[in-house]
Amino acid sequence: MVKPVQFIFNQFSLNHGDNTMSKAIATQNIARKAQTDAPPVTKMLAEFAVTHPSKGWSQEIEDQAHRTFANWAGCAVGPSDHETVEFALGAIKEFSPAPQASLLGRSEKVDMANAAFINGISSHTFDFDDTHLKTIIHPAGPVASAILAMGEHLKLTGRELIDALVIGIEVSCRVGNTIYPDHYDRGWHITGSTGMLGSAAACSRLLGLSADQTQMALGIAASQPVGLREQFGTMTKPLHPGAAAKVGLTSALMAKHGYTSSLRALEAPRGLIQVYSDKTDWSEITENLGGSWEIGLNTYKPFACGIVIHPSIDGCVQLREKLNINATQVKKISVRVHPLVQELTGKKTPKDGLEGKFSVYHSCAVAFITGRATEHEYADDVVNRADVLELRSKVELIVDPQMYEASCDVKLETVSGEVHEIHVEHAVGSLERPMSNSQLKAKFVDQSEPILGLEKTNQAWDACMNLGGLTNLDVLFKAITLQK
Amino acid sequence: MVKPVQFIFNQFSLNHGDNTMSKAIATQNIARKAQTDAPPVTKMLAEFAVTHPSKGWSQEIEDQAHRTFANWAGCAVGPSDHETVEFALGAIKEFSPAPQASLLGRSEKVDMANAAFINGISSHTFDFDDTHLKTIIHPAGPVASAILAMGEHLKLTGRELIDALVIGIEVSCRVGNTIYPDHYDRGWHITGSTGMLGSAAACSRLLGLSADQTQMALGIAASQPVGLREQFGTMTKPLHPGAAAKVGLTSALMAKHGYTSSLRALEAPRGLIQVYSDKTDWSEITENLGGSWEIGLNTYKPFACGIVIHPSIDGCVQLREKLNINATQVKKISVRVHPLVQELTGKKTPKDGLEGKFSVYHSCAVAFITGRATEHEYADDVVNRADVLELRSKVELIVDPQMYEASCDVKLETVSGEVHEIHVEHAVGSLERPMSNSQLKAKFVDQSEPILGLEKTNQAWDACMNLGGLTNLDVLFKAITLQK
Repeated sequence: MVKPVQFIFNQFSLNHGDNTMSKAIATQNIARKAQTDAPPVTKMLAEFAVTHPSKGWSQEIEDQAHRTFANWAGCAVGPSDHETVEFALGAIKEFSPAPQASLLGRSEKVDMANAAFINGISSHTFDFDDTHLKTIIHPAGPVASAILAMGEHLKLTGRELIDALVIGIEVSCRVGNTIYPDHYDRGWHITGSTGMLGSAAACSRLLGLSADQTQMALGIAASQPVGLREQFGTMTKPLHPGAAAKVGLTSALMAKHGYTSSLRALEAPRGLIQVYSDKTDWSEITENLGGSWEIGLNTYKPFACGIVIHPSIDGCVQLREKLNINATQVKKISVRVHPLVQELTGKKTPKDGLEGKFSVYHSCAVAFITGRATEHEYADDVVNRADVLELRSKVELIVDPQMYEASCDVKLETVSGEVHEIHVEHAVGSLERPMSNSQLKAKFVDQSEPILGLEKTNQAWDACMNLGGLTNLDVLFKAITLQK
Repeated sequence: MVKPVQFIFNQFSLNHGDNTMSKAIATQNIARKAQTDAPPVTKMLAEFAVTHPSKGWSQEIEDQAHRTFANWAGCAVGPSDHETVEFALGAIKEFSPAPQASLLGRSEKVDMANAAFINGISSHTFDFDDTHLKTIIHPAGPVASAILAMGEHLKLTGRELIDALVIGIEVSCRVGNTIYPDHYDRGWHITGSTGMLGSAAACSRLLGLSADQTQMALGIAASQPVGLREQFGTMTKPLHPGAAAKVGLTSALMAKHGYTSSLRALEAPRGLIQVYSDKTDWSEITENLGGSWEIGLNTYKPFACGIVIHPSIDGCVQLREKLNINATQVKKISVRVHPLVQELTGKKTPKDGLEGKFSVYHSCAVAFITGRATEHEYADDVVNRADVLELRSKVELIVDPQMYEASCDVKLETVSGEVHEIHVEHAVGSLERPMSNSQLKAKFVDQSEPILGLEKTNQAWDACMNLGGLTNLDVLFKAITLQK
């Protein structure tokens, strides 16, 4: 059997009068700041991915892995009947996929690649999933979506899935650390454009691939990055983690079957990292690999909007709980914030839910009235409800460049003349004030209960938070889907 | 139903002590040479793709479309039993795909997305497919692979396929013209990184999508570019057109079902083109769209190696035909060439087929002995055959910086003392000396006959060259596959 035939010099055209061939060579030789001496990070990540011991980390990381998985699962169930998911699934059904793997919150099964795709899309549809703050990567989507689909079809254990989740997220986030912020500033949606590597690494581990095969899987995935920031505000944003999950899973399967790629697909001068980032801090991959864990830095959003408003919402919720008064008793709520809050979310009279998310005024009002700021509080009808409008008109923004951007002061005056003040140093959901497990569960229930009902929601939560102990995943799928 | 929730300001971290949020804003505001006034090329290409009339071009373009399709099909059949295809298909079979569409040269059917994937891989495995010389794009792979799979499953006509082929290639190549060479120099394999757009446009047309829907399809595909040049020499190079075909086909189906994307996914400051190229010559898209045709500039390789050696091979073949002598009668063959030929293909003693492709010495020897330089002439055993080695040792290279890079002089001395010379201005297969239809057929037969047998090969050739006239594609699939 002859070998595949690919040539560097296929690039050269002999048919131009303008010396294209010589120019191409010249270009090649000056190579854009090419680093030919980058460390072999493709190989290092591959070896790490498949040789690091099961549960080879602290209990704190183990707990965080379960929190990450449960938060992801709830975020995938919540929008599972959203049109974003319906439309994507409509296309996938045209392929008559084999029923290999479940769709969270739904009754259908599809093949494992497309289950990874659809669950990944769903999990990011409300943009309510986790955040690795150092890189703004949403790490679970590409990895958890892939491993759950593969794990179901191949009847793997929860232990294997938790191991793969931690490993896959480590790979995505370390590559992210290497290239952030330049890569992101350039316009790439870093969740998708690193996620296919985390997915490939995690799936390689699940398939029991060798380090050499895993190196190939990473290489195959490296040629298929996903995600432009231009897509923010459209359904193609949540497509990014879904497509990354699918690419990684498929790449691992191809490597298993012997498919080859460059062994230096990440670090070579024309490898992924140098091609799409001017920042290439290789030490972010090479240092302490297997000894520190990026998933330990993962955070979860308590509020269904951009985190710039979170301190203000948090302050309003805290005052509500402390004062226990009705919104009609409020004369004024003054929020002192960093200028960025006004710049990004200064919309005084939002017309609908989407605009509501860009309104610190609506967010503060609805948070004081309901004690929450979930997807429900950004529904169109809630944004236009009389009591919300009434209180919204009483919210005042005080811009203070001296205010730290993660903090705010909230001052509330009652109609009876009392004044209450609160300072929020860090909002709940930040690294400094992480959501508790009971807060995470409340978020999970809030998203899942309308889809699955309360009983299955509780079962699903328990299964997610005990995933590492499940030798059979059936209990999870029975709870977290609508399958009969 | 609530709207999907995506925020530009989700990028900002409130939890860093280092003012990440303000820095991110600053970065955003200086935006890397962002052009906010680019013409609406996404919309223009979408409208063009679905509104341009069927066969709305000259007979010359119509003929070229058939030549492009037939050349692609032969290139897909040739390596259909190659391990590159076997390994990829092994992975895809793990999804238990529905038998919707055929694999050329094989007996299996898989779902249409994966048929596009596998046929796309196969067609580029020998790197013997077509070349749009202005951009070094191999244009057929991503487009033909997608439309043939979709056309088979949806029972479309050959006329629809030819129309979609011309349109899809126009979209890929015009985007390529816009960004080449900067994009390519950066390290992207431009065949895959523009191919998903051609595939999406072509499939949108086949599905009868509106211009608005097609704009979405292009946007969805824009978030999933494929291809790094680092992969050259591995199986992941031919993966690029295959994955691009699959992405485009899937994107069109998603748009059909209502999935949304940015309407300016190509031209926005954070759209695909500005994100991955500093060169953005929008006029390459906007000028004369629908009035000139890039497929008219398509070329086909007569020899299964990089085109830098093609003039030398051509010269040897011409001398062979002219002199009609045996290799044992040759005393010396001297080839005068541009220095690049030595730089890229100066391997004097290639050990195997792959090295043989980097050897002008082997190529000239085998071309003189056999009159060809197909994949067969680069098999390991041929490279090491006694008569080839014997003649190879008599090939001499004369490097001449004055020699035009697309040309060469070949001088042959016989043992009896005769001297014969020939000047090759442009090699066969160039724009200036395109392969004739009979040469193209010989190439097709050479690739197809070992797989399909001569009778089916002839039928397949006829079906390809008459594709526009086929109201039912069955005749093509009966001939060009091994299905019972």
